Amino acid sequence: MSTTVYKKIELTGTSTTSIEDAVNAAIARSAKTVRNMRWFEVVEIRGTINTDSVREWQVTLKVGFTMED
Amino acid sequence: MSTTVYKKIELTGTSTTSIEDAVNAAIARSAKTVRNMRWFEVVEIRGTINTDSVREWQVTLKVGFTMED
Amino acid sequence: MSTTVYKKIELTGTSTTSIEDAVNAAIARSAKTVRNMRWFEVVEIRGTINTDSVREWQVTLKVGFTMED
Amino acid sequence: MSTTVYKKIELTGTSTTSIEDAVNAAIARSAKTVRNMRWFEVVEIRGTINTDSVREWQVTLKVGFTMED
Amino acid sequence: MSTTVYKKIELTGTSTTSIEDAVNAAIARSAKTVRNMRWFEVVEIRGTINTDSVREWQVTLKVGFTMED
Amino acid sequence: MSTTVYKKIELTGTSTTSIEDAVNAAIARSAKTVRNMRWFEVVEIRGTINTDSVREWQVTLKVGFTMED
Amino acid sequence: MSTTVYKKIELTGTSTTSIEDAVNAAIARSAKTVRNMRWFEVVEIRGTINTDSVREWQVTLKVGFTMED
Amino acid sequence: MSTTVYKKIELTGTSTTSIEDAVNAAIARSAKTVRNMRWFEVVEIRGTINTDSVREWQVTLKVGFTMED
Amino acid sequence: MSTTVYKKIELTGTSTTSIEDAVNAAIARSAKTVRNMRWFEVVEIRGTINTDSVREWQVTLKVGFTMED
Amino acid sequence: MSTTVYKKIELTGTSTTSIEDAVNAAIARSAKTVRNMRWFEVVEIRGTINTDSVREWQVTLKVGFTMED
Amino acid sequence: MSTTVYKKIELTGTSTTSIEDAVNAAIARSAKTVRNMRWFEVVEIRGTINTDSVREWQVTLKVGFTMED
Amino acid sequence: MSTTVYKKIELTGTSTTSIEDAVNAAIARSAKTVRNMRWFEVVEIRGTINTDSVREWQVTLKVGFTMED
Repeated sequence: MSTTVYKKIELTGTSTTSIEDAVNAAIARSAKTVRNMRWFEVVEIRGTINTDSVREWQVTLKVGFTMED
Repeated sequence: MSTTVYKKIELTGTSTTSIEDAVNAAIARSAKTVRNMRWFEVVEIRGTINTDSVREWQVTLKVGFTMED
Repeated sequence: MSTTVYKKIELTGTSTTSIEDAVNAAIARSAKTVRNMRWFEVVEIRGTINTDSVREWQVTLKVGFTMED
Repeated sequence: MSTTVYKKIELTGTSTTSIEDAVNAAIARSAKTVRNMRWFEVVEIRGTINTDSVREWQVTLKVGFTMED
Repeated sequence: MSTTVYKKIELTGTSTTSIEDAVNAAIARSAKTVRNMRWFEVVEIRGTINTDSVREWQVTLKVGFTMED
Repeated sequence: MSTTVYKKIELTGTSTTSIEDAVNAAIARSAKTVRNMRWFEVVEIRGTINTDSVREWQVTLKVGFTMED
Repeated sequence: MSTTVYKKIELTGTSTTSIEDAVNAAIARSAKTVRNMRWFEVVEIRGTINTDSVREWQVTLKVGFTMED
Repeated sequence: MSTTVYKKIELTGTSTTSIEDAVNAAIARSAKTVRNMRWFEVVEIRGTINTDSVREWQVTLKVGFTMED
Repeated sequence: MSTTVYKKIELTGTSTTSIEDAVNAAIARSAKTVRNMRWFEVVEIRGTINTDSVREWQVTLKVGFTMED
Repeated sequence: MSTTVYKKIELTGTSTTSIEDAVNAAIARSAKTVRNMRWFEVVEIRGTINTDSVREWQVTLKVGFTMED
Repeated sequence: MSTTVYKKIELTGTSTTSIEDAVNAAIARSAKTVRNMRWFEVVEIRGTINTDSVREWQVTLKVGFTMED
Repeated sequence: MSTTVYKKIELTGTSTTSIEDAVNAAIARSAKTVRNMRWFEVVEIRGTINTDSVREWQVTLKVGFTMED
């Protein structure tokens, strides 16, 4: 009998709007090639600056997905 | 003469919408039984995934409140 | 031939609305005296509480800018 | 509509046998007064020494449980 | 046969005088409601400033106590 | 002349029995598709709870393997 | 309407007497050129040794102050 | 409109000469199969010893690359 | 009147069987030359891999012992 | 009698050659405006990639200097 | 020509009075067998509790000393 | 049957030239009294400054060696 094993990958999503959008961008892109994604963990929030405001949010997250048998 | 002493508790709030909503959900629930909450510190941002987007934000925070005499 | 050197400063922005607003507030204020800001890194998210909800978001970030020759 | 909120507590379980036993000891004791425990996270493994072997394993864990409405 | 289980709580003591006083203030206040406190661990030392000197020391500590059967 | 280069992946193994079993489960599953695994590093030990005992151990590890030429 | 923004600087104060004195020395020196200092956070405690006792305490702290408009 | 998403992988490069060589070895090997590598972050520097000097530098780095659409 | 002073050393024990065995191996070996060992703290769990299972557990721990007068 | 107080600033130096060069670049640039620099601490080593090798080393360091009376 | 090399050891000093006393106790005891101690770094502050106050301060520090040729 | 046990010591090597030289200086000095050194881990890179350049690199490393039976 085998138990569940997960793999975790690390992604950086970007957005000009919000932290939440950057996370969703990373997950949406990853969904094109990775199935069974279950959870994520935010590990870094940073970004670039446009003179006097945020130009781009860059959010790094780890995503865990079930490894299929 | 006694000085102020604070106690800190750790909560995880959830939201399908945003990080801010998850924090407010935790504080609102805690307010039912804890008085004099003063500050919070976010210690973890994670969540679950629904195929290709965030299903639920799970934000863990520490909340400090004044211990009454 | 000289290479680029950056300096990093640490700021705490505040907002009653969102984490993103607090970051932008810090960058906007800093832009009054600092030129050539390039990137930021969020290092802490905390805030104060108003009975049963967030009163003020306090977001600490490091901001990197190019040192001019 | 309210969302789920969890509270996390920190416990140290002990055992003369194994790390797993120390974790189970902490959870079993906590179950006497806390309902709806969902998950745990090990945060420290240490112990005392009896001349030339482990006398007692001391494992600190955080336990998350659902706050009831 | 049951083994000893400890619970750890997090407190912030304050003092205008010293770090040691702030720790003792937290333990003395906690002793009003918690029995069998065994050890503490300092996790943060910070405070407020009064123009050109420390106004108040704020020391956060974790306190471990035996859970009674 | 080329030197050895390793790649590291992050896995979470599960077991109802022990931490060691969870680690072995992750390595056994990974061995189906990854060759030349050399070492592992445990980065997190957590799990789920079944009323008053551990239901499932979840151990996250990094696994290093030689990249073939 | 603008919100409050704080800047944080990092200082190391020294003292032959105590940790508290080293912190106060740093704050007193900084007060000569920085106004509106609000809080500090101790980030490192170290020092030099004179044969068999502490010669000098070196305490590093971050100091936050309000940026004026 | 889609935004840029990056994936990060973790590699350990080796060299008998220097830290810089070990990093370059890892990037050169990775370039055989990964396109669009943009940046790296050193996360660990270690190595093996040959009696009284370094035998091999082992430098672990994270490498970020653009995920193509 | 003198107070107790402890010294801490760092050891890595190995075992083909379990984490607990690796810790005990380190303590047993250390007991040949060090007296009055009191406590230990696990600081790292890693190991080597034999194709598809753990070959050797390598557990690093700090051991504290009383310095005799 | 006043004691010595140090201020620490954070810089990122760059170099196409080595980590050491990047540190020296940051210190040389800082020396144009800061006197009495005493020590530095490397806090991050990263860089950009040019297809299959390091394009630029980016080393972040903290620099401590004596505050003059 | 040889350069200076330092060795660092880890000690825990105790005191019923203050953090400073615990550090000095560790250094004084170490001076009986170790020469040329140069600096120390505090790595942990903890202690035991006597009903409602600190019974013993336990301060762990690293001590660096010059290795003689 | 006994298993291998390693001891780890902490050293700081110095060099006016490079990080690699500082590491080698520490290992070469340690080899005069310690046999069977196997691996090292860099834990800190810092140094002193000579007006506008690095005067001395100070690299702290942990060194693991086999404890002989």
